[in-house]
Amino acid sequence: VTARRLDLAFLGFGQVARAFVRHLANRAEWLKDVGISPGIVGAATRRLGWVIDAGGLDPSDLLTRSESGRGFGPALTDGPTFIHDLQSALGSALDEGRVVLVESTLLNIGDGRPAIDHVRDGLSAGAHVITVNKAPAAFAYEELAALAQARDRAFLFEGAVMDGVPVLNLVRETLPGVRITGFRGVINSTTNYMLTEMERGRSFDEALTEMQRRGIAEADPALDVDGWDAAAKTAVLANVWLGARMTPHDVARRGIRGLTTGDVEAARSRGRRLRLIAAASRTGEVVSARVGPEELSEDDPLAQLDGQQNALVIATDVLGRLSITELDAGIEQTAYALFSDLTSVAVRVRRTPGSPPSALRDRTL
Amino acid sequence: VTARRLDLAFLGFGQVARAFVRHLANRAEWLKDVGISPGIVGAATRRLGWVIDAGGLDPSDLLTRSESGRGFGPALTDGPTFIHDLQSALGSALDEGRVVLVESTLLNIGDGRPAIDHVRDGLSAGAHVITVNKAPAAFAYEELAALAQARDRAFLFEGAVMDGVPVLNLVRETLPGVRITGFRGVINSTTNYMLTEMERGRSFDEALTEMQRRGIAEADPALDVDGWDAAAKTAVLANVWLGARMTPHDVARRGIRGLTTGDVEAARSRGRRLRLIAAASRTGEVVSARVGPEELSEDDPLAQLDGQQNALVIATDVLGRLSITELDAGIEQTAYALFSDLTSVAVRVRRTPGSPPSALRDRTL
Repeated sequence: VTARRLDLAFLGFGQVARAFVRHLANRAEWLKDVGISPGIVGAATRRLGWVIDAGGLDPSDLLTRSESGRGFGPALTDGPTFIHDLQSALGSALDEGRVVLVESTLLNIGDGRPAIDHVRDGLSAGAHVITVNKAPAAFAYEELAALAQARDRAFLFEGAVMDGVPVLNLVRETLPGVRITGFRGVINSTTNYMLTEMERGRSFDEALTEMQRRGIAEADPALDVDGWDAAAKTAVLANVWLGARMTPHDVARRGIRGLTTGDVEAARSRGRRLRLIAAASRTGEVVSARVGPEELSEDDPLAQLDGQQNALVIATDVLGRLSITELDAGIEQTAYALFSDLTSVAVRVRRTPGSPPSALRDRTL
Repeated sequence: VTARRLDLAFLGFGQVARAFVRHLANRAEWLKDVGISPGIVGAATRRLGWVIDAGGLDPSDLLTRSESGRGFGPALTDGPTFIHDLQSALGSALDEGRVVLVESTLLNIGDGRPAIDHVRDGLSAGAHVITVNKAPAAFAYEELAALAQARDRAFLFEGAVMDGVPVLNLVRETLPGVRITGFRGVINSTTNYMLTEMERGRSFDEALTEMQRRGIAEADPALDVDGWDAAAKTAVLANVWLGARMTPHDVARRGIRGLTTGDVEAARSRGRRLRLIAAASRTGEVVSARVGPEELSEDDPLAQLDGQQNALVIATDVLGRLSITELDAGIEQTAYALFSDLTSVAVRVRRTPGSPPSALRDRTL
């Protein structure tokens, strides 16, 4: 197998991006075996500045610079400027479809920017874009998917929902000809952990502080406890699976703020559990979506989720309902979503005319 | 999109095969949209005899002949002879990789034959083979997978485990670079239904009779209640995921025969549930696999499965544990497995040199 070079450029270089870079190193042999040769040609964040080198950057050096806070280089003007500079530096690689923009900036629940701009500008420049940011698909899926198709580039975001557990890929790759009619799930880890701890008698504030201390909670806790994170994920799934054309602001939303340990314990004493449920369904042309705490009976498949566990029940026309569950959550799992998306890009690149046959062909037959 | 003709030949034409033929008709528009044009060129069963027509057979007529018991034609000598006759009739289509053998004969837990021969002869003749029979992958996965690769044909069997819920496809298509270290699940619907009913006070015999009446139990109830069906599925998964090279006879196996309503109720009264658990794990080069009733605590993800529900918890190196659950089981779901496998064959056929670009490319990017 002749390895195909893929040039990665990072916008955002936090915990998830760093875990992804480490995973690439850990899986170097596997990547070689399937004919993928990834290299890093750029990285930029608001805090660390930016660096571009078409000849390749040293991953270890980037990790050290990021973790020490020493930084990459000059201050970043903004993402679009970085992408413009990438274009100047990488021209032919972009035309050949060998550049992958790895977007992992933080969620802006107001209007999804600048992440949407990053994806739009990246695709327009000729890059494939993979992201763990929920905003692009939550606010602008239809536009960005159409742009990706027009430019013949990938726009992938498996990490937007349930970390690296393949939720979007499950439906896209393994359920051909199946129509999804709705879904229902627990898709925010922080609030599920908090509710589990509150069942054990801890207070709302104690449980939240614990999640912040462990780096699991979103930087702005309102994103978790007011249901915004779950609403953004709901919009992603509703847009992709149900053709909803909605934003997180169209999701009927209640969070868990205001719920007390007493409320949670009272439900428990009735043999029930309070969980933050995200759901959407389609009736004719209308998609309705909601996020809010619900009291579940014990035989509900979502009632058994403890701690940071997530699950989605997917309703279909052919298979009835099936569900997929993330039993162990963490940064490594989220980073794997980027790895998985990168291999999808590689399969796509390999399938272009003139590319050599690949061991990856076995993966997707 | 230029439609690509696929010639289907059926060995076995029972409930599942008929539901698959009906599903092809229901999804005719979708198939046309993605560029798949399936036609039936042969069908054979021990009960109904055989028929081959390279020009195409009428699906409705086959369904009627099967359901009425009127039969297809002359008595079948055996599967290999039918495949030999297919070769004479279809020569060039086989060479072009446009023929799909749809194998759905009954499980022979003794040595897996004749299903293994059907797959071997089908692949050798140049056909892709898709099957819902567990035996080929349970008894001879390594040999048949190597043969398929050598002949550049597909050997797919998504329906062998958890009906049409994508278990094998989940791992193959959506978990690149992930190593599976073990699995644990409830994968036999009949025994799970029986145990659920016994928890409600029904007797073992009443529950079994109900499953036979509804056509869910295997023709030979020993396959279900003695754990053979679960052992065959365990061997399939252990062979494909853990490289086990085992047969169902290598699985440490206990069934639910001998369990009484009292046993099941007693577990329930302790807040626990008896379930038939299938599990396998790898330690170094050694894979151990077992099937047997286990008493599960209520927080076990497998303890919540009622009736015919199935679930698999998959342990991985990168993602920790994830699980996939079939909440609604039935013949339609099993038939969908064949539909899903057929589209995988079509994607593969389309990717051969000279074939036109396909809308299906979007599915697997």
